[in-house]
Amino acid sequence: MNHLIKEVIKFRDDRNWKQFHNPKDLAISLTLEASELLENFQWKNSEEATKENYQNLKDELADVAIYTLLLAHELDIDIEQAILDKLKKNAEKYPIESIWF
Amino acid sequence: MNHLIKEVIKFRDDRNWKQFHNPKDLAISLTLEASELLENFQWKNSEEATKENYQNLKDELADVAIYTLLLAHELDIDIEQAILDKLKKNAEKYPIESIWF
Amino acid sequence: MNHLIKEVIKFRDDRNWKQFHNPKDLAISLTLEASELLENFQWKNSEEATKENYQNLKDELADVAIYTLLLAHELDIDIEQAILDKLKKNAEKYPIESIWF
Amino acid sequence: MNHLIKEVIKFRDDRNWKQFHNPKDLAISLTLEASELLENFQWKNSEEATKENYQNLKDELADVAIYTLLLAHELDIDIEQAILDKLKKNAEKYPIESIWF
Repeated sequence: MNHLIKEVIKFRDDRNWKQFHNPKDLAISLTLEASELLENFQWKNSEEATKENYQNLKDELADVAIYTLLLAHELDIDIEQAILDKLKKNAEKYPIESIWF
Repeated sequence: MNHLIKEVIKFRDDRNWKQFHNPKDLAISLTLEASELLENFQWKNSEEATKENYQNLKDELADVAIYTLLLAHELDIDIEQAILDKLKKNAEKYPIESIWF
Repeated sequence: MNHLIKEVIKFRDDRNWKQFHNPKDLAISLTLEASELLENFQWKNSEEATKENYQNLKDELADVAIYTLLLAHELDIDIEQAILDKLKKNAEKYPIESIWF
Repeated sequence: MNHLIKEVIKFRDDRNWKQFHNPKDLAISLTLEASELLENFQWKNSEEATKENYQNLKDELADVAIYTLLLAHELDIDIEQAILDKLKKNAEKYPIESIWF
């Protein structure tokens, strides 16, 4: 993960974009990218969208991941640890035995 | 990254949730989680939100990352490679010299 | 429409909320409400969602409409005229004869 | 409001689009339009966005309103009544005396 974060930050700094990257605007960008991803599924089912828009899905999902890394970096969040902590929290919320169906 | 993907998939399979995880609904979930993240900034500036909602920001950003990994897995996308490819594409779209300001 | 706008603005002013209602935060609120509406369809098809979540769909759609009126008011947009203008623009973009299928 | 709903439905039926307009996809479209509206505020404050993107804000807000009317129609919701009901509900949730500040 660390090498990805380095690449993303390098891309940002090469363009002097740190000045724009306050957490609120990065969180806005993340919802915009998630919407652009979702747009690929508009008026389509999963199979049609995957077949017709595969490269675009890949690009938009990458954009979501890039903004996730940028926002984590800006907020000083260790995203790997945050994922593991959240999975643990979710596991308490949804214990295995009670929800199997 | 691979160990994170394994943890996320294990969490899903322990709960037998694969049956629900079609790409369209996962893309919907990703926008919902991005919105829950953004909600922390509603009526607040970045500093206030970061100070008042730090743990929640961490949790919601982790949820965005988890759904990103789930959707990548479902679409058979290597997310690390997708990020590197997208950064390259973005670098062509925004060449360094033309946008410095 | 005018009586609805008056009701919405009265609700806001009774609570002294105008101070928070800058257009950027209202636009954020609009995406949050649209997401809460969409959440009713998560992991469900249209029929299931409509059957199981009808009252909630009604409430969330009303919230979207309320924020639309608030933002229009704040931006000094006549929303009725804006709708008619946009339909005209869309009609030029999608002429009837070319898209029937 | 009724004449607006008629115009919107006429636009849809002239293009034979009713076949695509299931509630789930309309709810997706609503979040997409709300995001396109929000995009006008990306990296900008309210004043900059309003000044630079006024016509686009008007167009996107109209799109949000159009999809709101389409979805209300599809779900057989009287949107005027829904707004009034929701304002009443919100008034109970946020009583006037307790929240003035």
